[in-house]
Amino acid sequence: MRIAELSRRSDVPVPTIKYYLREGLLPAGERTGPNQASYDDGHLRRLRLIRALIDVGGLPVAKVRDVLDAIDTAADEPLHEMLGVVAKSIGRTTSGEGESFAEARATVDEMVQRHGWHVDQGNPHRDELAGVLVGLDQLGHSELSKHFDVYFDAAQRIAREDLDYVSKLGGLEAILEGVVIGTILGEAAFAAIRRMAHVDASARLFRERGLTQ
Amino acid sequence: MRIAELSRRSDVPVPTIKYYLREGLLPAGERTGPNQASYDDGHLRRLRLIRALIDVGGLPVAKVRDVLDAIDTAADEPLHEMLGVVAKSIGRTTSGEGESFAEARATVDEMVQRHGWHVDQGNPHRDELAGVLVGLDQLGHSELSKHFDVYFDAAQRIAREDLDYVSKLGGLEAILEGVVIGTILGEAAFAAIRRMAHVDASARLFRERGLTQ
Repeated sequence: MRIAELSRRSDVPVPTIKYYLREGLLPAGERTGPNQASYDDGHLRRLRLIRALIDVGGLPVAKVRDVLDAIDTAADEPLHEMLGVVAKSIGRTTSGEGESFAEARATVDEMVQRHGWHVDQGNPHRDELAGVLVGLDQLGHSELSKHFDVYFDAAQRIAREDLDYVSKLGGLEAILEGVVIGTILGEAAFAAIRRMAHVDASARLFRERGLTQ
Repeated sequence: MRIAELSRRSDVPVPTIKYYLREGLLPAGERTGPNQASYDDGHLRRLRLIRALIDVGGLPVAKVRDVLDAIDTAADEPLHEMLGVVAKSIGRTTSGEGESFAEARATVDEMVQRHGWHVDQGNPHRDELAGVLVGLDQLGHSELSKHFDVYFDAAQRIAREDLDYVSKLGGLEAILEGVVIGTILGEAAFAAIRRMAHVDASARLFRERGLTQ
């Protein structure tokens, strides 16, 4: 298809598609003339993925490129490694310096070990969580992290459900895309659901208090 | 304290503090001379909150201002309303147009009702979740949303734990700050934990498969 049709089918304006092409987010189409190229369903699919990561997942363009690069390079790795490559590309880079960070990181390591999880020491999400612990501590809310065992249990249930979905997808690229979509869009979904759960829980709590007063 | 001491104690550079003052994120200090102002522990606390929301929570400056404004205005509302004001300020604005959005929104309403949650119809997180459903559908992954009952159950357990923590905080401002911190930093924590859970779950899954092959 021509770029105009790609735009119509994806609902993404032509200038935006050209921007993604220039930025290397979208692979070039097949040249069919000096100023013309042809695009296929793979481009359409990729374009939809880019939009979902930006619009729904709130990822900046540079991050989207990292994630897409990971999907493309991971295809040459063994399956378990592949998922790691993609997972790492999604992670936030947390600056981890100083004594308080080292302490927080030790706490994270202890939490992961207590739950018996297989997560390698170099996994960026360990540092990410340590960064949150440092933040909580600086704000005088380090007590909140004592409740994180419930977070671990909840995350484990969700992860099993997610994997169950992803592992049923047919084909390598579909699995890798599924991991990215499940992580980023699943996270946006869970954030919205958790916030609604807070509204519900506080309504219950303060109603109960109201009734007993 | 003078701005230099505020900078030293918060580990935030003086030009950055001045930027937050100009942007209205930090209230002005008490004037003590033509070019001097004095700051108190309230400023230090607020400054730490700003940094945590930006650095750990990844919020843009404009959003931080919305959240802080909500904390300040909410203090005049009844407790349950207050939490709502703060919760709404944290929400993402999702553009909700078209037939597919209306369908997704109906699905969300049905999910919330099925779980018996008290969340008003105007709550922005309903639209946020609907936006994710639209994204999943466009990517051909609408099946994933069938797993969201597990997300609802997990969110409910976490929300009860969070509220348990927040409701024990003394004082109105502490509770409001606790809600913001619990929501934003708790979300960053949960995202990191969920990603580690994915790594663990996929290690288990592919090891199991390896053993049975």
